Amino acid sequence: MEPVFPFDLDLPARGAGRIARDLHQQLRAAILEGRLVAGAVLPATRRVATALGIGRNTAVTAYDLLIAEGYVLPRVGAKPVVAEIAQRRLEKARTARAIDRKNWLNDSWRATPGLTTPPGILPPRSFRLGLPEHRYFPHAIWRRLVANALRRQARSGFAYGPSEGIPELRQAIAQHVAFARAVACNADDVIVTSCAQQAFALLALKLITQARRLVAVEDPGYPALRFAMSAAGAELAPTPVDEEGLIVDRLPPGVRIICVTPSHQSPTGVALSLRRRRALLDYARRHDSVIIEDDYDGEFRYGARPLDALQTLDRDARVFYVGTFTKSLFPELRKGFIVAPPWARGAIVEAKYVVDSHSDTVVQMALAAFIRDGHLARYVRHMRGVYAERRAALIEGIEVQLADWVKLIPAEAGLHMAARFLRRRDAAMILRAAALHTPGAVPLTNYAVSRDVAPGIVFGYGVIDAGEIGPAMLKLRRALEKGDRSI
Amino acid sequence: MEPVFPFDLDLPARGAGRIARDLHQQLRAAILEGRLVAGAVLPATRRVATALGIGRNTAVTAYDLLIAEGYVLPRVGAKPVVAEIAQRRLEKARTARAIDRKNWLNDSWRATPGLTTPPGILPPRSFRLGLPEHRYFPHAIWRRLVANALRRQARSGFAYGPSEGIPELRQAIAQHVAFARAVACNADDVIVTSCAQQAFALLALKLITQARRLVAVEDPGYPALRFAMSAAGAELAPTPVDEEGLIVDRLPPGVRIICVTPSHQSPTGVALSLRRRRALLDYARRHDSVIIEDDYDGEFRYGARPLDALQTLDRDARVFYVGTFTKSLFPELRKGFIVAPPWARGAIVEAKYVVDSHSDTVVQMALAAFIRDGHLARYVRHMRGVYAERRAALIEGIEVQLADWVKLIPAEAGLHMAARFLRRRDAAMILRAAALHTPGAVPLTNYAVSRDVAPGIVFGYGVIDAGEIGPAMLKLRRALEKGDRSI
Repeated sequence: MEPVFPFDLDLPARGAGRIARDLHQQLRAAILEGRLVAGAVLPATRRVATALGIGRNTAVTAYDLLIAEGYVLPRVGAKPVVAEIAQRRLEKARTARAIDRKNWLNDSWRATPGLTTPPGILPPRSFRLGLPEHRYFPHAIWRRLVANALRRQARSGFAYGPSEGIPELRQAIAQHVAFARAVACNADDVIVTSCAQQAFALLALKLITQARRLVAVEDPGYPALRFAMSAAGAELAPTPVDEEGLIVDRLPPGVRIICVTPSHQSPTGVALSLRRRRALLDYARRHDSVIIEDDYDGEFRYGARPLDALQTLDRDARVFYVGTFTKSLFPELRKGFIVAPPWARGAIVEAKYVVDSHSDTVVQMALAAFIRDGHLARYVRHMRGVYAERRAALIEGIEVQLADWVKLIPAEAGLHMAARFLRRRDAAMILRAAALHTPGAVPLTNYAVSRDVAPGIVFGYGVIDAGEIGPAMLKLRRALEKGDRSI
Repeated sequence: MEPVFPFDLDLPARGAGRIARDLHQQLRAAILEGRLVAGAVLPATRRVATALGIGRNTAVTAYDLLIAEGYVLPRVGAKPVVAEIAQRRLEKARTARAIDRKNWLNDSWRATPGLTTPPGILPPRSFRLGLPEHRYFPHAIWRRLVANALRRQARSGFAYGPSEGIPELRQAIAQHVAFARAVACNADDVIVTSCAQQAFALLALKLITQARRLVAVEDPGYPALRFAMSAAGAELAPTPVDEEGLIVDRLPPGVRIICVTPSHQSPTGVALSLRRRRALLDYARRHDSVIIEDDYDGEFRYGARPLDALQTLDRDARVFYVGTFTKSLFPELRKGFIVAPPWARGAIVEAKYVVDSHSDTVVQMALAAFIRDGHLARYVRHMRGVYAERRAALIEGIEVQLADWVKLIPAEAGLHMAARFLRRRDAAMILRAAALHTPGAVPLTNYAVSRDVAPGIVFGYGVIDAGEIGPAMLKLRRALEKGDRSI
């Protein structure tokens, strides 16, 4: 029989009064030690009595004592629950117990989450980065596809999924990425991951060795990528970025792994020029390096002529193409992928098996159907129009209103744009004013490794309407005109 | 405007016939190089003509040439698609391109997935391990909760989730695990992971250092746990297991991290005795070690008196309790958790941020509701009855039918039982016969590190009915009686 409490009770037979007190004391200890937590529903006294072979009144007496002391709350027509007060006392007990053992931890690497502001602090419509629009997403279609996938699962039985992803999703991603981004691949080359971040972690785990630990990263660049590399033992070689993207000539010698965002550099937004793309592939050939191509925001391009992906230009099986559905669909989906050269595929699948076995099969089924049925292509096409309008409003806002303070960095893709400060000394003033009038915008230097990165500001337009951008920029301008002191 | 093909076309103006041939050749090249993959839908000729500024007949001619050559398949009333034949040619081209670079990979660790048989090879009802029953799962309720969570998301907008998990799920897990397993915790102590496997990987990433790399694992024990430790740089110290679980006296000196499955040792099924539990905590205190308690299958206990978890007995903040919903709900859910001591919490959340940012928020919301509304407790209670019946049938089957060949290892929990061979020389014969008559059962030595592990066989009862177990055991017995040669 199932035990009535999840711990042992010791109630020697000796008069109902003594038993009630024993029970009361042992339950109270369980609450104080956290074996029964605040909000836990206690079993009915009738069940307690039967299970423990005691009188029901004895159980009622024990409960009454707990209620009298405030450990347990009675509820009308429902079983009593453990009270919050107990929780607070417990917190103290636990803190006392917790020996400081921070020196126990591996601090050869650290990560600082929270580059972007946590939800709840910014207004829902803001200039925050990296978050896509949800208003035009076909929620009802997605709900239907998820329900279909769950029904399929209910019919077929439970199963562990393949570490590399389910075949239908790998096939759908291969077709999508081949068509949308001209990436040369088929289903076998695709490994499904939990977003781009896991893709970085898997590649780091299998590519970095003691002998090959110098990893080039863009400066400024995406911090979480750097954390993933460092956690796997990398030594970072921050490499500067200009208006043509990563400055290939500045790559130090001996770099064996190069991380790059060619479509839309993160965070400056510039595209890696064709000249640089060829130079980078040439560097890789000469130094026997591999390239991790993060096609960050690559779905949303506004120019007529997208440049070929590095993966497309590569004739030497050196490029790992990393894609994600975080921006083209939504972050909670947690789905990204690697298009890997054949020589490395098996090893990356192994890494995926080791870090979390496989990704959620039901969501994979729904996503495969969403792509296959054309919803993704349609949605991206629609959103490209929506974002293009916002981008135009942002360019106009920056160029018309803020021309005295900043200079826009040209960008043809993505969901954000960056601008550099004309005068370094304005930086603090502009950032303070922006915090008030364009909330969510962040300093470019948040992404910097070295102090050489020119300061600037990055505006996202994923969750702000085109019509709100101009007025916000006007307010920002007025604040800047009033000058430093009044802000 | 959105480009009509995802790559550049070069069509100098020079007579419609030449343009048609240029277009045909460039599309064919795109197909051969994998920039257009099998199954990709080509744009309508009308759209191609408008986008490229050519006559529609020119586009039709180019398509007709591709169709004539078999690169493209026409479809009645639908746009043509890229054919499979192209895919096969592409495969050749890609293989030729792929330089062998296996020596590029970090082979300081390897993992061999596929300990259990992949789906599709075993019949749906079998003795396979680690898979729970799906027949009694409240699929409709789960579908409703997922749909509710998706509706909530549609209303609130997209967001990145917290790396440690959403508060409502951490709260629900704390209450569940405190009540069901007497684990002393509250919501702050809980970190949501993608199953137990990710929990192991996160703990390995933050606990193993150069100076602290000796990690004790049970022998026999769960191989994927060993892979996760090795991938983070561990040196393994396999430690034998007997009928009381991990033999604490056999832990070598200098072990700083001890991985153990106390409820139901994986794979032998034995419980760690209370004496050993105390000895293990004492060892940890004396050697300043930490313990990773994998409460594998802990939800399904059949005895009246579950032993307290190590986490419950620990007074010294040394135990990391790892739980999963893989068996109590289903593996595709990909949800597990760590109950961590306060000193290590922040570091583990950092590790989670680095490896995949956060887990799927929608599924977390649905799971929180499933637990909070009592469905989990109800379902586990029901399944305990179902599994108990199967377990009884398995014990009877082994003891009545197979007593001449094997001896059951007593186990009070979980979804499988193990038996040791009475004579080592029978091993091959029994395993061959079992492959035929009790498909899914696996050799105990599949889990072994050293050669000292006594051979045996493990039978799962997650996906087989009680009524099927006896007849299968009878068949196995008859095969064994006929002896070695006839099998």
